[in-house]
Amino acid sequence: MIIMETDATPEQIARVIDEIHKHGLRADVIKGEFRSVIGLIGDELRISFDILSVLPGVKEVVRVERPYKLVSREYGEFFDSPHKHRRIKVGNVTIGGSEPIFIAGPCAVESKQQLFRIAEDVKKAGAHILRGGIFKPRSSVHSFQGLGAINGEMAEETLNWLRDAGNMFEMPVVSEIRGEIHVDLMAKYVDILQIGARNMYDQDLLTKVARKKKPVLFKRHFGAGIEEFLSFAEYIAAEGNKDIILCERGILPLGKGKEYTRYTLDLAAVPAIQKETYLPVIVDPSHSTGRRDLIFNMSCAAIAAGATGLMIEVHYDPSASLVDAKQAITPDELKNTIDACLKIHKLMRPVATKTKAKPDEKVKG
Amino acid sequence: MIIMETDATPEQIARVIDEIHKHGLRADVIKGEFRSVIGLIGDELRISFDILSVLPGVKEVVRVERPYKLVSREYGEFFDSPHKHRRIKVGNVTIGGSEPIFIAGPCAVESKQQLFRIAEDVKKAGAHILRGGIFKPRSSVHSFQGLGAINGEMAEETLNWLRDAGNMFEMPVVSEIRGEIHVDLMAKYVDILQIGARNMYDQDLLTKVARKKKPVLFKRHFGAGIEEFLSFAEYIAAEGNKDIILCERGILPLGKGKEYTRYTLDLAAVPAIQKETYLPVIVDPSHSTGRRDLIFNMSCAAIAAGATGLMIEVHYDPSASLVDAKQAITPDELKNTIDACLKIHKLMRPVATKTKAKPDEKVKG
Amino acid sequence: MIIMETDATPEQIARVIDEIHKHGLRADVIKGEFRSVIGLIGDELRISFDILSVLPGVKEVVRVERPYKLVSREYGEFFDSPHKHRRIKVGNVTIGGSEPIFIAGPCAVESKQQLFRIAEDVKKAGAHILRGGIFKPRSSVHSFQGLGAINGEMAEETLNWLRDAGNMFEMPVVSEIRGEIHVDLMAKYVDILQIGARNMYDQDLLTKVARKKKPVLFKRHFGAGIEEFLSFAEYIAAEGNKDIILCERGILPLGKGKEYTRYTLDLAAVPAIQKETYLPVIVDPSHSTGRRDLIFNMSCAAIAAGATGLMIEVHYDPSASLVDAKQAITPDELKNTIDACLKIHKLMRPVATKTKAKPDEKVKG
Amino acid sequence: MIIMETDATPEQIARVIDEIHKHGLRADVIKGEFRSVIGLIGDELRISFDILSVLPGVKEVVRVERPYKLVSREYGEFFDSPHKHRRIKVGNVTIGGSEPIFIAGPCAVESKQQLFRIAEDVKKAGAHILRGGIFKPRSSVHSFQGLGAINGEMAEETLNWLRDAGNMFEMPVVSEIRGEIHVDLMAKYVDILQIGARNMYDQDLLTKVARKKKPVLFKRHFGAGIEEFLSFAEYIAAEGNKDIILCERGILPLGKGKEYTRYTLDLAAVPAIQKETYLPVIVDPSHSTGRRDLIFNMSCAAIAAGATGLMIEVHYDPSASLVDAKQAITPDELKNTIDACLKIHKLMRPVATKTKAKPDEKVKG
Repeated sequence: MIIMETDATPEQIARVIDEIHKHGLRADVIKGEFRSVIGLIGDELRISFDILSVLPGVKEVVRVERPYKLVSREYGEFFDSPHKHRRIKVGNVTIGGSEPIFIAGPCAVESKQQLFRIAEDVKKAGAHILRGGIFKPRSSVHSFQGLGAINGEMAEETLNWLRDAGNMFEMPVVSEIRGEIHVDLMAKYVDILQIGARNMYDQDLLTKVARKKKPVLFKRHFGAGIEEFLSFAEYIAAEGNKDIILCERGILPLGKGKEYTRYTLDLAAVPAIQKETYLPVIVDPSHSTGRRDLIFNMSCAAIAAGATGLMIEVHYDPSASLVDAKQAITPDELKNTIDACLKIHKLMRPVATKTKAKPDEKVKG
Repeated sequence: MIIMETDATPEQIARVIDEIHKHGLRADVIKGEFRSVIGLIGDELRISFDILSVLPGVKEVVRVERPYKLVSREYGEFFDSPHKHRRIKVGNVTIGGSEPIFIAGPCAVESKQQLFRIAEDVKKAGAHILRGGIFKPRSSVHSFQGLGAINGEMAEETLNWLRDAGNMFEMPVVSEIRGEIHVDLMAKYVDILQIGARNMYDQDLLTKVARKKKPVLFKRHFGAGIEEFLSFAEYIAAEGNKDIILCERGILPLGKGKEYTRYTLDLAAVPAIQKETYLPVIVDPSHSTGRRDLIFNMSCAAIAAGATGLMIEVHYDPSASLVDAKQAITPDELKNTIDACLKIHKLMRPVATKTKAKPDEKVKG
Repeated sequence: MIIMETDATPEQIARVIDEIHKHGLRADVIKGEFRSVIGLIGDELRISFDILSVLPGVKEVVRVERPYKLVSREYGEFFDSPHKHRRIKVGNVTIGGSEPIFIAGPCAVESKQQLFRIAEDVKKAGAHILRGGIFKPRSSVHSFQGLGAINGEMAEETLNWLRDAGNMFEMPVVSEIRGEIHVDLMAKYVDILQIGARNMYDQDLLTKVARKKKPVLFKRHFGAGIEEFLSFAEYIAAEGNKDIILCERGILPLGKGKEYTRYTLDLAAVPAIQKETYLPVIVDPSHSTGRRDLIFNMSCAAIAAGATGLMIEVHYDPSASLVDAKQAITPDELKNTIDACLKIHKLMRPVATKTKAKPDEKVKG
Repeated sequence: MIIMETDATPEQIARVIDEIHKHGLRADVIKGEFRSVIGLIGDELRISFDILSVLPGVKEVVRVERPYKLVSREYGEFFDSPHKHRRIKVGNVTIGGSEPIFIAGPCAVESKQQLFRIAEDVKKAGAHILRGGIFKPRSSVHSFQGLGAINGEMAEETLNWLRDAGNMFEMPVVSEIRGEIHVDLMAKYVDILQIGARNMYDQDLLTKVARKKKPVLFKRHFGAGIEEFLSFAEYIAAEGNKDIILCERGILPLGKGKEYTRYTLDLAAVPAIQKETYLPVIVDPSHSTGRRDLIFNMSCAAIAAGATGLMIEVHYDPSASLVDAKQAITPDELKNTIDACLKIHKLMRPVATKTKAKPDEKVKG
């Protein structure tokens, strides 16, 4: 992390970037109101910090001792000072702003009729963003893989429905990208590109998605620690795309005997991650618990833990869902959940901000 | 589970119990307002359900297909019908009642002065029950093991302090029992006997503690699934003691790299356990996160998840604690936490009860 | 699984396949010496087994009650009867044959000189197949990603070295494919396409790699159970490619405190997997332990557990490796390891076969 | 760890011990051939190393930076120099000696006839030590708890059978102690006191068992890391009892879906633990896999990994076992297993010792 003098010239900045490129690294440049900051991308050991620190216009070179640097709170404070989180705008919705955001919709898009009916329902219930799976990652090749997986024509048609439903009910749309081959197609239709838990470690997919310059909803793998989760988010940030929404969706359950929840929802990870990064964190209570009867409580708990939003699966007839029938809630249940969450969020706010100390001088970027 | 006729005579009940004893099993008898119910303790395969069902006065014999039976919600509905949980009364405090209960105090009792000062502080902050470790289970024989572990005289003196502090500030007291050799001594002084996570599997300790007929605070082991947790609670219930407070305190963390929380707090286990049993469930945010800066959020989240109480470590000077210095909060922080939790609980209540359907005819016991 | 009559005509077989396609499923056809067997690929619920069983030429329709069917031992017995495993031939090497196979080489290719020197060394030590990482999956974007990741020209040049080294020292070569974008390129140069642990769940990558019709070395994810591992291998088999070498490489470590091994090598998974599938299983002691001083013992243990091969990282100067320096062994150590493993394998063989019962009538395919 | 001069007088040693006691710590004294070494037990922070190092007769004070000190290899080298492990003698058997030791017998003692028949069988098959469970730790209060749990008279009678069977077939006997209340009774009858996995963390039980001055078979908890395992073994060593046989018996399985082994046998822990401590390590393939058909392979693998012994459950009619019927093998299978293990051990020995470097000057104690 190279902090430039307040009066550093564009030429001086270019000179630093040149030096960085010369050693095979890349540069992430933040132009602030008062000063610029340059982040290194690549193996720091290949460049001498002593040389960088004496280049003209350089005020200070700071080493960030973590595998994640560009997404660290430390780095983010140079461009996100007035807010607790980065605010990510999609259409007329702001994720990471003063209000929690609710993403809702069917697990899988099953038909145009099903999608439009649910879209209308979730909008009425208070949701802000519409979700809908088109390519479903499945454990078995013998299971339904999503309408998009049938053939290319079907994929495009289904994406069109999603786009239209979003437009009609005024909600940005999000859908999961399962493989690199779908990135271009998906980016044409959806507003937020989701990378699912199983693909968290797929660095080539991360890089390709990041380059679309659209917000990325990035889910934690069920076997990943927090450090790893942020280290892989760094692959997205390294492409210059910091509009990353982190999503906790449960880790592997532990212990012998019957499983009472599908995964272990790691809610303490929410405030723990928020201390490490400026990226907003949301929670998926649907996949983590796998139980419709726990969604209400765990949604409220997630907001109380500090989540900036929720991603919930909704179906007008949950038991008829083609995928994950046990975890979808009805639109009425969604409304109850959103109402309770908004009240809890309101109640938490003043207390939460009390504990926040802000550094004085900051740059925006 | 043997359901008797409403007009079954005491002789008929005795006859059933006799039959049970004859096969080497034990009986748990609930005398209700309308009818009695008898639970079997031991290996059901050793007794014929056909024979039991034709005994005079027997209405119905129901097989409970789970390793836990006496603590199951199904069984509890015969004596706890009007309430969501069993209500456990200790002094003037009711655990599992309409208000959440806060257990607070130092991790380890370090001195009389320390204990009394913290007791006064937590009482003012709104706590209902005083905790204080006297025999500390520790990973290393080279660590401080609690004042009680120094010698027998010291153990008795420290327990006296705890008793006196409880009396003076009108709070029942709870302390952990680490081994069978301390059960008699501890039971003389404390109101609630705690069995720590590491001893969850220690069935001989469970049995011995249960026989003291005092409420038991029973913590989930960090490697135990929910089924195992309830199966071991059953060892306590099998001694006729159903005053069991279950406590979630985090399971083993997963994933490579730095650990950001000491354990993974499994909050979805709270509502999941509550669907299985009538026993009240509380949460320990202190040991689970191991981080003072996460206690506020995770306490609120626990209440939102449906916990009936919290157990929190408090110290007027957290960094000076002899044990677990990183996780204690100050009395002021405790007050903030309790205030927020009470508000969330109030807000959750009406919604939570809406979803509760009650069976019609029930017996009390 | 549709078992045809011994005298079923090609037309009858085509008729069955037609019926399968009509319902949106695919067919896997095994033409045996005596009879043909047809496996279904896709959701079985979409087709009526009653209809299939009355088609002309059909002897029997068998439902396989597992998420993996094509890779199950049950299915494999129709074409692999005389052997314990499927025998996969690559050049002059047979994986799954009567002798254990040793795959060795550098973790990452660092230079032409390094690769050729190690290739020569491991050949002399007794290795059969040469490994060399060109695109390295890494936890941090700031780490060395392999020579192939620098640019396309470099990727091609490095792959050329690997090909040449394989040719010169007469060893087939294997290298990991990290993303779908490299599949075509890699398939041009390497004999065995490796899918790393982190990509195990990447079904689109699996499908694309499978279609290259080259043997696939498929590693178990560190958070995957055996059922999941085989279910994802099924994605490869579903493309008609059954030349799959399964590789156990350790699962997530558990428990508090210092980690003494990088992952937990799950050796009991080796015989457990072998009971489920006809695919050969090898073990990677290098990544699983992460410790050079454990490779000898754990290699011997893997062979004793029943592994049909090992994949070991070797460097003439382990501490100078650019990647995973702590786990590479020297060529001398490799020789000792291979020698001991061969002796153990010889010793195990007669005992192991004693317990094997063989079905009578089988078809080859 | 205080290393005394070779000519230190008994008075000087006593003076050092005095100083240690004065600060509330305990001392572990090893009188060697050439010199004495004193280990500290308790919180080292309470004593000044500067003061200790200037006491007369003290050569050097060494700080061991691990939670386990008395069981560390470093400390052990002062009294166990010529051997790789501590050699623990029980009757005419030496655990940790040049030959692997096989402990075998029924999971639970079911009758005198059953025990004697199996004892005779395992002796013939080559076993050295007889095992037999009398108090069985069980997950459910409704399961068979062992004959000893029925009543005190039965406990004593069953222990008598075990003692007699051991005497008759000339094998030392081992049985598990489940709670502190049975320590005195068990120590009267059995030669090796077993502490089961579930009691690993029960430090009061460990202390009480250690004081019996009999060898302790100490099993790793299924959720414990290696550091914790050794730290709790330290509780036994701290009572002056270093005759501890460590036993790996599997850790919690991980991953979704069906479980193919009961626990995950962590075989790499065997050599990893052996590098840390001089205590011998054995493996229990029965409880870890829970599968009779994996015992042969995993026993061989354990010996190849470096285990100094095995503990295997045997029954002449495995499917009729009252406890853990799926994992017992027959006496014939035991014989095959022992034969193969002895061959593998013989084969491993010369290679294994090659890598062993020995310190020069050592004391015995």
